[in-house]
Amino acid sequence: MSQYEISALKQELTGLAMVDDPRLVRQKSRDFFWYSPVLKRQLDHVSGDLVVTPRNEAEVIRVLKACYAQGVPVTPRGAGTGNYGQAMPLSGGVVLNLAEMRAVREIGEGRVVTEPGAIIAKIDEETRAHSRQEMRMFPSTYRTASIGGFIGGGSGGVGSITWGGLRDFGNVLRLRIVTMEAEPRQLELTGEDLHKVMHAYGTNGIITEVEAPLAPAYDWTEVIVGFDDFMTGARYANDLARQDGILKKLITPIAAPTPHDYLSRDHSFARRDQSVVLLMIAPHAMDAFLTFHQRATGNAAAGGKSEILFRSDKTTEEERKNLPPVYELAWNHTTLCARRVERDITYLQVLYPFPGQLELIEKIHKHFGDEVPAHLEFVRFDGDITCFGLPLVHFSDEKRLEEIMTIHEDMGAPIFNPHRFTLEEGGMKQTDAVQLAFKREADPRGLLNPGKMIAWDDPEFDYSSQKTYLFPGMQSAE
Amino acid sequence: MSQYEISALKQELTGLAMVDDPRLVRQKSRDFFWYSPVLKRQLDHVSGDLVVTPRNEAEVIRVLKACYAQGVPVTPRGAGTGNYGQAMPLSGGVVLNLAEMRAVREIGEGRVVTEPGAIIAKIDEETRAHSRQEMRMFPSTYRTASIGGFIGGGSGGVGSITWGGLRDFGNVLRLRIVTMEAEPRQLELTGEDLHKVMHAYGTNGIITEVEAPLAPAYDWTEVIVGFDDFMTGARYANDLARQDGILKKLITPIAAPTPHDYLSRDHSFARRDQSVVLLMIAPHAMDAFLTFHQRATGNAAAGGKSEILFRSDKTTEEERKNLPPVYELAWNHTTLCARRVERDITYLQVLYPFPGQLELIEKIHKHFGDEVPAHLEFVRFDGDITCFGLPLVHFSDEKRLEEIMTIHEDMGAPIFNPHRFTLEEGGMKQTDAVQLAFKREADPRGLLNPGKMIAWDDPEFDYSSQKTYLFPGMQSAE
Ligand SMILES: Cc1cc2nc3c(=O)[nH]c(=O)nc-3n(C[C@H](O)[C@H](O)[C@H](O)COP(=O)(O)OP(=O)(O)OC[C@H]3O[C@@H](n4cnc5c(N)ncnc54)[C@H](O)[C@@H]3O)c2cc1C
Ligand SMILES: Cc1cc2nc3c(=O)[nH]c(=O)nc-3n(C[C@H](O)[C@H](O)[C@H](O)COP(=O)(O)OP(=O)(O)OC[C@H]3O[C@@H](n4cnc5c(N)ncnc54)[C@H](O)[C@@H]3O)c2cc1C
Repeated sequence: MSQYEISALKQELTGLAMVDDPRLVRQKSRDFFWYSPVLKRQLDHVSGDLVVTPRNEAEVIRVLKACYAQGVPVTPRGAGTGNYGQAMPLSGGVVLNLAEMRAVREIGEGRVVTEPGAIIAKIDEETRAHSRQEMRMFPSTYRTASIGGFIGGGSGGVGSITWGGLRDFGNVLRLRIVTMEAEPRQLELTGEDLHKVMHAYGTNGIITEVEAPLAPAYDWTEVIVGFDDFMTGARYANDLARQDGILKKLITPIAAPTPHDYLSRDHSFARRDQSVVLLMIAPHAMDAFLTFHQRATGNAAAGGKSEILFRSDKTTEEERKNLPPVYELAWNHTTLCARRVERDITYLQVLYPFPGQLELIEKIHKHFGDEVPAHLEFVRFDGDITCFGLPLVHFSDEKRLEEIMTIHEDMGAPIFNPHRFTLEEGGMKQTDAVQLAFKREADPRGLLNPGKMIAWDDPEFDYSSQKTYLFPGMQSAE
Repeated sequence: MSQYEISALKQELTGLAMVDDPRLVRQKSRDFFWYSPVLKRQLDHVSGDLVVTPRNEAEVIRVLKACYAQGVPVTPRGAGTGNYGQAMPLSGGVVLNLAEMRAVREIGEGRVVTEPGAIIAKIDEETRAHSRQEMRMFPSTYRTASIGGFIGGGSGGVGSITWGGLRDFGNVLRLRIVTMEAEPRQLELTGEDLHKVMHAYGTNGIITEVEAPLAPAYDWTEVIVGFDDFMTGARYANDLARQDGILKKLITPIAAPTPHDYLSRDHSFARRDQSVVLLMIAPHAMDAFLTFHQRATGNAAAGGKSEILFRSDKTTEEERKNLPPVYELAWNHTTLCARRVERDITYLQVLYPFPGQLELIEKIHKHFGDEVPAHLEFVRFDGDITCFGLPLVHFSDEKRLEEIMTIHEDMGAPIFNPHRFTLEEGGMKQTDAVQLAFKREADPRGLLNPGKMIAWDDPEFDYSSQKTYLFPGMQSAE
């Protein structure tokens, strides 16, 4: 039974789309937290009490005002594809489902204005039709994730090899938010203020409108290159990433045997001992890419053979229909594909700092061997070309998982821990003073997505203690 | 008097547009070689014998065939804005003026096909009108230079901060050339083959068609930021260049007093002791840029004050009409503006290698002081952000000029010597085996732009000797 006066709240919200069937509410209280065996154990029982689905900002305001008055927590939800329980209502209360606020409101040169629940692929459909423009970057959950959820919980993805991360100045132009107060305010955030709510898990405001930059749309050519040796592929990827004149959207090296064992159900392309690099290349850059490829692999005697295994521009439309887009083998989809085959697989999020990324990758993967199969995503990062790792991990127990992360950090590769549900532990392991200060203003009662910002709940928390934060407000498992 | 049978040639070419009035021919035999006091001394007397202006490729073939048969040199010319006498016919003969072959033939998504004589700004006019696309990069001679001349003699420019240099894979897609043989051949070059003729000064083929990539067109916002201290401006420029999410086309730091003394006739903006950074920013990135600016200059107590001196988005159309575009204060236009005021000024072309560019700039300019006023152009270079220098030089004599260049190289900054008319001396100071081999194929009699490729004339030339190459085929001065 809920600890909140849900019936009074429902009364108050008459006329809004609401669901309180516990089975349905539980469904909408979950995300991809189960990627992590740690979060699976901690959060599996979590559920909200009521799902409210506003159709517009006025309805959002009604919900926030009522919940504020009654002290009911509100956890915003886009499409619920986050990986760390970001959208899970740890203390129950209202799940604010923004999926119906999905209009694309305005398209201009280099910009689009949308409601928060718009699915990213749907935005692109409209901007492409309007003026052959598209979003600069998207998560590999392109076809299911909302723009509001991407900004609230994501970090970058397909396109980051050209544009850097979501957090970089210029990759989000404006956000309109509603605060959680007695009289909710509507605020327009630009510039420095954007960082108050970006990647804040909805803990300090509900995004009700997004203005994002657009890039020219292309029918990106998908390419998969196979390598006998993973490090040869990683070096190839790094070199290609550094080709300033070759426009690309994705550069993803994945070590054998992942391509064969986990990705082949869809794309049956690689031998078991073959590593791959997945690519998305602008069609008008294909000749340049093939020239690069020839040069890069022409005299790679040392690293064994390489070959182009797949080119979407050499397949028929019919053939492509039966294949997933290549980005659905990349970013966090690699993990998803692997988990479909082996349930014990989880993953890490690693940064290999420039300029030593290749040496570090080699060292780390030599150290772990088959326990941690390599998966890299090349990106621009603060002006340099380097890569993140989203390596798979064959999970044994939580202690070993911690150990694997510690070894990474000791070797010089920072971890963004995907086995924690708090902003700080999954991020920079320190208080974000800007987000905290803004939460004081915009959510004075601490009702937005409770338990996700340690700095709010426990300002004294010691990040160096290696202890996992335990949110006291968490629902207890039955 | 000419050493060639010009009258027979004219006979042969009846029907083509020809000029042999020596005054007019001399005009079309010159470029901006006089930027260099060394080249001015060496080349001032040079002139062709006949200017032929073909209207199409068939006419180009007629000219080449006739000249081949009669052993008359042919020097292609676009708009003649090159800086090193590239388009000057050292041995006389025919100046092949491609200015009338200026059609834009085809515009597609991310690509344009043009004739070689098309002025770059004119190409953009058409691609903008067609589909809001524009050239990825252009020389600051945008409004006068031809695309064929840019590819034959240029290296990059406005746009290189995003796309790298012209030589990078993908920045030219295809070239069609005509060879200088008994029966001229038409060849289509793509991929690796492009480097056979790119930046070859027209020594091994006449470009008759260009396919180049396009980027989305924006009405770039021009910004000029003033700094009390040049190095603070240089660091600001470097930091801005590294902002992956802020789309920009130009980042140009220029040290005081150049902005005030030489650039102010047009833009009277800077105090005499003020250094500037010239910028072109995508309109939809302006908010992000201003956020960057605020952050970068907010606490720059150490480096003195900075202020935004000019923003094109804050001027009226009327005001802008009286101002040159900001790129006409940048790249090699800075030198041009300076020379308009002080005749003794010349310049250098310097590469500051990543990652030590800022330290090296500081060291070099401290060393030279007012003799070599700093001017930088930030670019992407093989995947890194760094900058070229186009510093001004107060010329005293040729010996000192050489010394200044030697000091640069000794300090670790390679020079692309703009006081030499040969490919090798102005470039990598070594034979380009690919271009040489292709010249053997495409110009077996060595009639295309003679004297520009040392490797052809004097395979034994010793680049380390510090001696200037003397082309024996050069016309003697009267
Ligand atoms: C297979 C797979 C692949 C993935 N690939 C990537 C990737 O490439 N890059 C990447 O960054 N992420 C990736 N993710 C994570 C996630 O899919 C993305 O971040 C996605 O953009 C989240 O969108 P969503 O609509 O599902 O958000 P949700 O999961 O619904 O929400 C995410 C967070 O934002 C908050 N939120 C949602 N809407 C709002 C709003 N309107 N106002 C305020 N806060 C709000 C939620 O409370 C939550 O904290 C991946 C996940 C999976 C499962
Ligand atoms: C003020 C000023 C600023 C400049 N700024 C820049 C800059 O930012 N970046 C830069 O790269 N350069 C710059 N330059 C140099 C020059 O302007 C450019 O390289 C320009 O693109 C040359 O074009 P053009 O048509 O004038 O070529 P030309 O000077 O006519 O020719 C250049 C070379 O190409 C050859 N050529 C011309 N047409 C053909 C053809 N069809 N086939 C084969 N060969 C051919 C010529 O023989 C010659 O060797 C600048 C020069 C000046 C004077």
